[in-house]
Amino acid sequence: MMFPKNCWYVAATTSEVRPGSVLARTICELPMAIFRAEDGAIGVLLDRCPHRLFPLSEGRIEGSGLRCAYHGLVFETDGKCSEIPSQPEIPTNAYATAYPVREAHGLVWVWPGDKTLADQTPLPGFETGEGYLAGLDFSCLDPSDMWGVAGPNVIHLNAGYMLAVDNLMDLTHTAFVHADTFDNAGILGSERTVKAVGQNRLIDFFAFKNTMSAPLRTGYMLDQSVPLFDNFLETYWQAPGVMILVHGAVPEGGDREADGAIVLNTNILTPATRTTSHYFWAQSVYKNRGEGKVCDLWDVMTKAAFAEDEETLDKQQANLDRFGTTTLDGDVALVLKADKAIVLARRIVNRMVKEEASIGSI
Amino acid sequence: MMFPKNCWYVAATTSEVRPGSVLARTICELPMAIFRAEDGAIGVLLDRCPHRLFPLSEGRIEGSGLRCAYHGLVFETDGKCSEIPSQPEIPTNAYATAYPVREAHGLVWVWPGDKTLADQTPLPGFETGEGYLAGLDFSCLDPSDMWGVAGPNVIHLNAGYMLAVDNLMDLTHTAFVHADTFDNAGILGSERTVKAVGQNRLIDFFAFKNTMSAPLRTGYMLDQSVPLFDNFLETYWQAPGVMILVHGAVPEGGDREADGAIVLNTNILTPATRTTSHYFWAQSVYKNRGEGKVCDLWDVMTKAAFAEDEETLDKQQANLDRFGTTTLDGDVALVLKADKAIVLARRIVNRMVKEEASIGSI
Amino acid sequence: MMFPKNCWYVAATTSEVRPGSVLARTICELPMAIFRAEDGAIGVLLDRCPHRLFPLSEGRIEGSGLRCAYHGLVFETDGKCSEIPSQPEIPTNAYATAYPVREAHGLVWVWPGDKTLADQTPLPGFETGEGYLAGLDFSCLDPSDMWGVAGPNVIHLNAGYMLAVDNLMDLTHTAFVHADTFDNAGILGSERTVKAVGQNRLIDFFAFKNTMSAPLRTGYMLDQSVPLFDNFLETYWQAPGVMILVHGAVPEGGDREADGAIVLNTNILTPATRTTSHYFWAQSVYKNRGEGKVCDLWDVMTKAAFAEDEETLDKQQANLDRFGTTTLDGDVALVLKADKAIVLARRIVNRMVKEEASIGSI
Repeated sequence: MMFPKNCWYVAATTSEVRPGSVLARTICELPMAIFRAEDGAIGVLLDRCPHRLFPLSEGRIEGSGLRCAYHGLVFETDGKCSEIPSQPEIPTNAYATAYPVREAHGLVWVWPGDKTLADQTPLPGFETGEGYLAGLDFSCLDPSDMWGVAGPNVIHLNAGYMLAVDNLMDLTHTAFVHADTFDNAGILGSERTVKAVGQNRLIDFFAFKNTMSAPLRTGYMLDQSVPLFDNFLETYWQAPGVMILVHGAVPEGGDREADGAIVLNTNILTPATRTTSHYFWAQSVYKNRGEGKVCDLWDVMTKAAFAEDEETLDKQQANLDRFGTTTLDGDVALVLKADKAIVLARRIVNRMVKEEASIGSI
Repeated sequence: MMFPKNCWYVAATTSEVRPGSVLARTICELPMAIFRAEDGAIGVLLDRCPHRLFPLSEGRIEGSGLRCAYHGLVFETDGKCSEIPSQPEIPTNAYATAYPVREAHGLVWVWPGDKTLADQTPLPGFETGEGYLAGLDFSCLDPSDMWGVAGPNVIHLNAGYMLAVDNLMDLTHTAFVHADTFDNAGILGSERTVKAVGQNRLIDFFAFKNTMSAPLRTGYMLDQSVPLFDNFLETYWQAPGVMILVHGAVPEGGDREADGAIVLNTNILTPATRTTSHYFWAQSVYKNRGEGKVCDLWDVMTKAAFAEDEETLDKQQANLDRFGTTTLDGDVALVLKADKAIVLARRIVNRMVKEEASIGSI
Repeated sequence: MMFPKNCWYVAATTSEVRPGSVLARTICELPMAIFRAEDGAIGVLLDRCPHRLFPLSEGRIEGSGLRCAYHGLVFETDGKCSEIPSQPEIPTNAYATAYPVREAHGLVWVWPGDKTLADQTPLPGFETGEGYLAGLDFSCLDPSDMWGVAGPNVIHLNAGYMLAVDNLMDLTHTAFVHADTFDNAGILGSERTVKAVGQNRLIDFFAFKNTMSAPLRTGYMLDQSVPLFDNFLETYWQAPGVMILVHGAVPEGGDREADGAIVLNTNILTPATRTTSHYFWAQSVYKNRGEGKVCDLWDVMTKAAFAEDEETLDKQQANLDRFGTTTLDGDVALVLKADKAIVLARRIVNRMVKEEASIGSI
């Protein structure tokens, strides 16, 4: 399983790239220096000076450019060299490789592939609807009267990005990996519908009655006296690694908007190398009940749970490595019913990778 | 030098695999999850769940099976999946790879090769004789009126198993590696006879007069006033890595059974990878003189000495690695007279490896 | 970029190899045991015993030889085995591989290539001249009435030796890498002349007027009231890694010998592996002004600055590694005017490597 490169990937959060800062990060096996000039413009350069291949991420911001720490060459956000201290003239080939970059809703997106395709491709985001579904274009990441937001955070996984996507697409792991946090065994017997939406999107609906475990009741701030809840969990996925999980609970037979606890959990996976990845995530709590506190409670619970995921995924990748397994597609693994969305998603991503390879070979 | 796989190898000691425990250990480059169910049965499974390849050794024992920590599948000691939490039916191909396993005299043996050959192959052990030679079938590992036992212990070497076998087959290293512990220079001038016993066994007899160093006199609890001792050291080896060293000393001209200190030192080497190994060893002191204390003294001395061996072997392997040498057979090394048993033993093991390769290629 | 092997390379300083000591060091990818016998003779052996390939550098000096720590074989400085404890006779093939070695001016030189060429090749050193130029044959490393000497020191770089040579051949890095130590921005606008001297030597002259930064005034013990200095920096290089940098300053229009501060900075790079190296360096301060103290000041300043170089070079090498770049010749890097000496020097070293390869293939 490799990654497609002609995609917008989240490279950093806005708060990681304050004006004057430089961040080293590998995206799709490309080491990048991500920097923000003093005027706020963001540049993403291949992390090596074209002169002596020193890492540009070791440099410092000066005005609108990034100055290399070795011989002092300065590069602008578009990669052009604007100063060579040891000589007055700038050779015409004095460029660092630059990547297209966009910023929206607190996320910095980069395009590691063919630059000519970047402009015509909009940033990922899902069709929005009424009420809490209005946040699906990632506007749920902007704190507002409608949303309480925790994050975005970033975890650096020692696991390939698709293992993390798989993990989110088979939530039956919740009953075992998160037994000490969510304690959400209810999901094991849930009704589930997976449907494709267009060429590279899936929606995966879970719905189940649940008594709700103590941690979940607390996290959602649910009424302790209610005996049974309608639980819902809807995963919106866009290939290859962009997901929003819409989840919540409402007293049995109640109305989601009026009586429910609703959380939009953004999960975005970006390949670092074949076996490592960056995991960006945030919690957006819908303020339909005017409760801001649920956001903090949910944030604390999720941080503990995502640390469990991190440990699990790192161990899974380490095991793939020691067995020399480079893929987890159906032909090497026992496929269960719970893997339905995984199988569909991997088929889509594999097709994207193959299409890029055939483009490259024309 | 590779390892044959159609052999019983010691995978663990009985005390390492208590009921309810799971142990991760690599044998012959196969990562294994070794577990004991609540009823005492032992299972050895390839250390990856067939579902998503998560390490089974991270799981926990429930009743007669091992439950995977990721999605909760349960596997029995024979590898059969007995529960899938997210669905009621068990697919017919839901099996983890299982290995034949036996247990005797406190050692757990596993068969990493062709399963169909395991049943017809008895566990290693040597022909027994009278008196202290009655323990050569590893019954010397069972504490009794006849034997005081320290161990079995396990050391994990960063050295290939045959380097450790070599080390035990050329005991002239004792005068240098163990100068601070055994201080046994007497071995350098000893008479020695190496003889083959059947197809895959050797016996290597050392016999020499010795004044016995202070540490050895103490370890054996020998009479300090005796001027000269008959020292003996007899190595029983079964290919590829099973050895019992029978050693001791008796006042010159005395009778071993009546007057001697006699120790059976079990040494069993199991390949982990090509360059790492598991070293199981124990000290069985023959209670011919009714002295239990000699066991403790000898145990302390040997632990210090085996730490010296460990350091030596790890350095030797590291040096082979940095020189890119994968073998130490006679064609790349200066062969001395003291290497006689090594040369014979390696010839036998090489033949076993080749025979397995030719079986595989038919 | 590889290294030529038919060269004298500095393997150690005299003070690193005191009588009775053994030093493990890799030179040109050859692990070596460098030892000095009790009588003062130096031996350099391939770091593996011919018997069981144990590292000889773990052994100990006994009289004129080095005793292996495993089975006690003894080897003389010429590699000949002189004792085998387990047998009286010495086989005629009982030799460790030995390397030609020379010692002069506190440096121990070894010849890792074709031994037959070593005798006919003199140790590196430059033509000497009058006054401070008399020290260019490395006699400046011997403390005397003429020279105050700090060092030689050794740094072990996680960077290939040619990256360190490059670094010394483009001193415009001083203004950035050493901004906190030398603070020598004056070099950026200097006049510069690079000239070849014979087949495998270059001299690289820098000359510039300079107000001299506070650290440099202090280091050189210059008169604080002088407004402008004539600064000079002359690099003598012999392929592949031997350099003396002659540098100093004199009040504008003054006489170097009479009024100047003059330092001969020895820098010798020895390849360890393709991506690591040993960096030997010393400061020889010319006592034309009778000031011994300048030596200590300059030593302290240079140690801080060379730590900056070490950090820079290690990061550069790490970046080459992660980009899979094995060379930094002009065809992969943007070449600036300041790289003139680098380009010439690398051309010379590449020719030497190719010539050795063609000799080997005849």
